[in-house]
Amino acid sequence: MDVHVQKYGGTSLADDKRLREVATRVIERKEQGKSMLVVVSAMNHTTEDLIARARRIHSHPSPRELDMLLSTGEQMSVSLLAMAVESLGYEVISLTGGMSGIHTDNRHKQARIIRIDAARILRELEQGRIVLVAGFQGITPDGDITTLGRGGSDTTAVALAAAVGAAWCEVYTDVDGVYTGDPNIIPEAQLLRAVTYDEMLELSRLGAGVLSTRSVELAKEHGVKLHVRSAFSAQPGTKVMEVEAMEEVLVRGVTMDANIARISVAGVPDRPGIAFGLFKQLASEGVSVDMIIQNLNRAQVNDISFTVSKDDAGSAVQACWTFLESIGGHGMVLQKDDVAKVSIVGTGITNSTGVASTLFGTLYEAGINIEMISTSEIKISVIIDAGQADEALRKLHGAFSLDSVELS
Amino acid sequence: MDVHVQKYGGTSLADDKRLREVATRVIERKEQGKSMLVVVSAMNHTTEDLIARARRIHSHPSPRELDMLLSTGEQMSVSLLAMAVESLGYEVISLTGGMSGIHTDNRHKQARIIRIDAARILRELEQGRIVLVAGFQGITPDGDITTLGRGGSDTTAVALAAAVGAAWCEVYTDVDGVYTGDPNIIPEAQLLRAVTYDEMLELSRLGAGVLSTRSVELAKEHGVKLHVRSAFSAQPGTKVMEVEAMEEVLVRGVTMDANIARISVAGVPDRPGIAFGLFKQLASEGVSVDMIIQNLNRAQVNDISFTVSKDDAGSAVQACWTFLESIGGHGMVLQKDDVAKVSIVGTGITNSTGVASTLFGTLYEAGINIEMISTSEIKISVIIDAGQADEALRKLHGAFSLDSVELS
Repeated sequence: MDVHVQKYGGTSLADDKRLREVATRVIERKEQGKSMLVVVSAMNHTTEDLIARARRIHSHPSPRELDMLLSTGEQMSVSLLAMAVESLGYEVISLTGGMSGIHTDNRHKQARIIRIDAARILRELEQGRIVLVAGFQGITPDGDITTLGRGGSDTTAVALAAAVGAAWCEVYTDVDGVYTGDPNIIPEAQLLRAVTYDEMLELSRLGAGVLSTRSVELAKEHGVKLHVRSAFSAQPGTKVMEVEAMEEVLVRGVTMDANIARISVAGVPDRPGIAFGLFKQLASEGVSVDMIIQNLNRAQVNDISFTVSKDDAGSAVQACWTFLESIGGHGMVLQKDDVAKVSIVGTGITNSTGVASTLFGTLYEAGINIEMISTSEIKISVIIDAGQADEALRKLHGAFSLDSVELS
Repeated sequence: MDVHVQKYGGTSLADDKRLREVATRVIERKEQGKSMLVVVSAMNHTTEDLIARARRIHSHPSPRELDMLLSTGEQMSVSLLAMAVESLGYEVISLTGGMSGIHTDNRHKQARIIRIDAARILRELEQGRIVLVAGFQGITPDGDITTLGRGGSDTTAVALAAAVGAAWCEVYTDVDGVYTGDPNIIPEAQLLRAVTYDEMLELSRLGAGVLSTRSVELAKEHGVKLHVRSAFSAQPGTKVMEVEAMEEVLVRGVTMDANIARISVAGVPDRPGIAFGLFKQLASEGVSVDMIIQNLNRAQVNDISFTVSKDDAGSAVQACWTFLESIGGHGMVLQKDDVAKVSIVGTGITNSTGVASTLFGTLYEAGINIEMISTSEIKISVIIDAGQADEALRKLHGAFSLDSVELS
């Protein structure tokens, strides 16, 4: 059986007309001889509306009850899509996460898939039915409904593709694919025809937002090839997979995250265990830290700076003060919000000496000051003034010749 | 464990304020030491809105997919009610029909309960939780979602009350209970404090519409006492149960059904098998026939008249013509729509000679012609001109002293 997996996001299912378009697209592929397994999100705004409704009743509803409520969104869209397919004369069946055999742990609102029993899906596919699955949801050992957290429908699609041995998982969204940069900032940005899983992970984490991190990790782990494409255009989209040839083009894209704050703890004693103590305190407050630098600026006195998401900035500052008190009250805590993280992404980037120097040189020539630097295998990130981030992106996009990238 | 069952209809859950009122009412009873098991309908208009949405996609969606869609209505209301209970600081859990162990056959849209496994409900109740169940729904042996048809949430409540051995099932609705007649037509109509199951069945079938027929039959079968009351008033409501003393008051109420048509097949030969053939044809077209009379008006020629619901009138006439053709084309089919069925209901009514004569005498004095008559153990019904139905109801209500009924 040649199973082909598709996933449709909320905007693709926003109204009756779009539901019919999706149904037509599914049937086209079915007519090409594929066994079709389709995962759908809730319709546009449904989840937000349900959350708003819940909050009017209870400021902090229990995660279990919230999952009971939110899972209705995908159940509605999957059954309506089934009707749209029926209306075109095809055999179809819609399944909830539980019916699809997606078994999770009981961490409501952010459940992890522990096992997939695809027997029902395979049985329906073998009978020639188009199988539609409500994304984002699973079922606990007790039979309770869970949701998989942000981007959960992508996770459902990739996990099911792995479970049924599908080679490809097409992810339909409202953008054309992954670009070398944000087209809103860089008009010359090019659509990338293909990226590796690791490149996609960095591009996604850094704001491209096309695929959830977790779904890309899962796809990499199980070797499921992803194809991100628009439900509203005939653009070729972006394939996410391991390809040797892709390493020829070094820098794949530039990207930016402005939703960060820089926290500095200044004037702490330079003695062993200080950094350990500080970040232990931050972790215990649930603050997730991204980049870290430590400057020894005077004998015996240290400055430690790090970045967090803007949402976490308040808790981070609080945790820092708590830490300073615990070591005797020395030092200061400073918060800076008007910063942005600009990154260049590409496989093998940090093994190539030319890339870092081009990055630093380009920013220097543009008069942009670099506050912090961090590197990974496939990424170099710098923290700069938020007001200069767009210009930095444009200059870097040009400097790495992304305006004229050879599309593979 | 002293389990108390409550059921709330859609109007009781129409908005946030009412949800909180319901939560408060549930908690009050919990505080009286009861283990609370609560069944809820979908919020007002939700089911109708979902059906309308489905019809825009497909004029005749498959019953299975419609059940997938419609069941989200109760799942939403049950989880939101859970949040309302949580917000008042009580332990609560919401369950779908499937989670509640309501196993049905696979007749979608009108499934029958085949088995209830109440283990999960009992476990949650034993842990002191308030258990909320989404009404109207169950699960097939394959794990698919079914709905129980019209009045399905009443059925859920009564079936669960029987399964957990609850003595009482309170049914909260938007009316004060069961009256001796329709208060819109008869201002003197009195609220009945108690009726028997059979009386309730007749009153419900004939238009009181407070409880579904099926739920009353189920309650009778399992000896579950029902208490119908308003979610919006402090009225005492109507109890439905077997009580000897209730037989003292003979006629319990008068009721009317104007949604009927009278069909006459005139001039058919008077020979054996004619009536059998006609009603077999009607049954094969799915037409449900209520009252039947047959007049031998000339030698060898018969008139057969019967009543059907207005919705079925078209199919009934069609079936009659088909039948007439099959016996050689003799006879005529006539349809009359402006008729109404007026009934008096009360246990033992047909064993009391005075009742029928009072009925016929009252209508005669009011100048109302009786077209058809039928009787059952606890009911006498007459078909009269629709334009005279309200007057008939008022006259009969007075004639049987229902204006001053002794409330038990």
